[in-house]
Amino acid sequence: MAEIGLFEAMHSARALRRLKPDPIPEEVLAKVLDAAIRAPSAGNRQNWAFVVVRDPEQRRRLGAIYRKAADIVGAIYAARGRPSHMSEDEYRRLMSSGSHLWNHLAEAPVLLVACLRREVLPPAAALPPAVQARLEDEREYVMRRAGASIYPAVQNIILACRALGLGTLITTNHMLYEDEVKALLELPDDVQTYALMPIGYPQGRFGPVTRRPLSEVVHLDRWSVPWPG
Amino acid sequence: MAEIGLFEAMHSARALRRLKPDPIPEEVLAKVLDAAIRAPSAGNRQNWAFVVVRDPEQRRRLGAIYRKAADIVGAIYAARGRPSHMSEDEYRRLMSSGSHLWNHLAEAPVLLVACLRREVLPPAAALPPAVQARLEDEREYVMRRAGASIYPAVQNIILACRALGLGTLITTNHMLYEDEVKALLELPDDVQTYALMPIGYPQGRFGPVTRRPLSEVVHLDRWSVPWPG
Repeated sequence: MAEIGLFEAMHSARALRRLKPDPIPEEVLAKVLDAAIRAPSAGNRQNWAFVVVRDPEQRRRLGAIYRKAADIVGAIYAARGRPSHMSEDEYRRLMSSGSHLWNHLAEAPVLLVACLRREVLPPAAALPPAVQARLEDEREYVMRRAGASIYPAVQNIILACRALGLGTLITTNHMLYEDEVKALLELPDDVQTYALMPIGYPQGRFGPVTRRPLSEVVHLDRWSVPWPG
Repeated sequence: MAEIGLFEAMHSARALRRLKPDPIPEEVLAKVLDAAIRAPSAGNRQNWAFVVVRDPEQRRRLGAIYRKAADIVGAIYAARGRPSHMSEDEYRRLMSSGSHLWNHLAEAPVLLVACLRREVLPPAAALPPAVQARLEDEREYVMRRAGASIYPAVQNIILACRALGLGTLITTNHMLYEDEVKALLELPDDVQTYALMPIGYPQGRFGPVTRRPLSEVVHLDRWSVPWPG
């Protein structure tokens, strides 16, 4: 099988939520994981970890936590309504496949949990006072940039799955019950989860992903100037 | 030019920090941006924005903010020392190319700033009490998952740049002076920056990215069981 082109993979890696229960061969899964770790991370620290949940009982328990979180998230979605850039029909389809997943997550043959070890800053005493002061002012900094060390790997997983004929997507609902997930997976205290990805052979098809046009989201040099390209 | 394969791109998209000042053709940059927006985002909301900073004076100012932040980050790196999985030599090279970038960021022909509109939860009154209570307990939830809606796009940028012969990498130091960056780029209050990516034709070469082995970072079903694959 010829390798899929990069841009073709990006343009057709639709989020597929209806998955078959068929098992995924070990070497295929290894290729997905090997793609994940080729991603960059801050200072190349690779403080990531990936838990491949394949055991049916572990999947069932993880699915139950996810289901519970879905009730919370469902209430948020309901209160928020349809985003303006989606048609009624697109929104209905998103909600329908979303709620399918809420009830069937555990049926995917693999639930992949992407984790990251919390970044620890050096003790204040080891830093010059000006540095301490700036970090104190910018507490959000560490948390906001953490994603830069795990979601690139997650995107590599999505693209590798697409190339290997596997459906997947990022889900984050489970973070609402992070402590229960950590207990179930025996995660160390300083390891946090960032994505729960059901992976399996899709019932549906890959297809073009449609998006808002560049003209709406790209700016040139400053916000007030739209990108002319 | 035949399209580069997905896995080849992932395996060779080394972080290249020494870039030539040569301009990037408009249509090449458009292809990079078009790759960015093919990424997934939570609920397909696409609350992202990308500022292409090409104007020399804007680049100079952004570079000056970045340089100031580098003094903070340099102190953190110095206090923290070499990660155990890197050799002395690898660490010295990382520090050297890092400090090159600190002083030469503005020379890249494009500085791409990836932004995300802050997620706003519905007002508490619109949510059932149990949902309110859970969100109150999990304040980190919104911030931690925000990266899932922007860093996949950032990884697509890295891979598209690789395919098009452009060097780039994620930098986040500037977040330490987020307010100054927002003022310079005229960003709305509710838009936050997540990455500052210098993009240009590289002086160095793409090459294999080396990483810690899967056996060190992948677990099966639970933390205590290493992945046998």
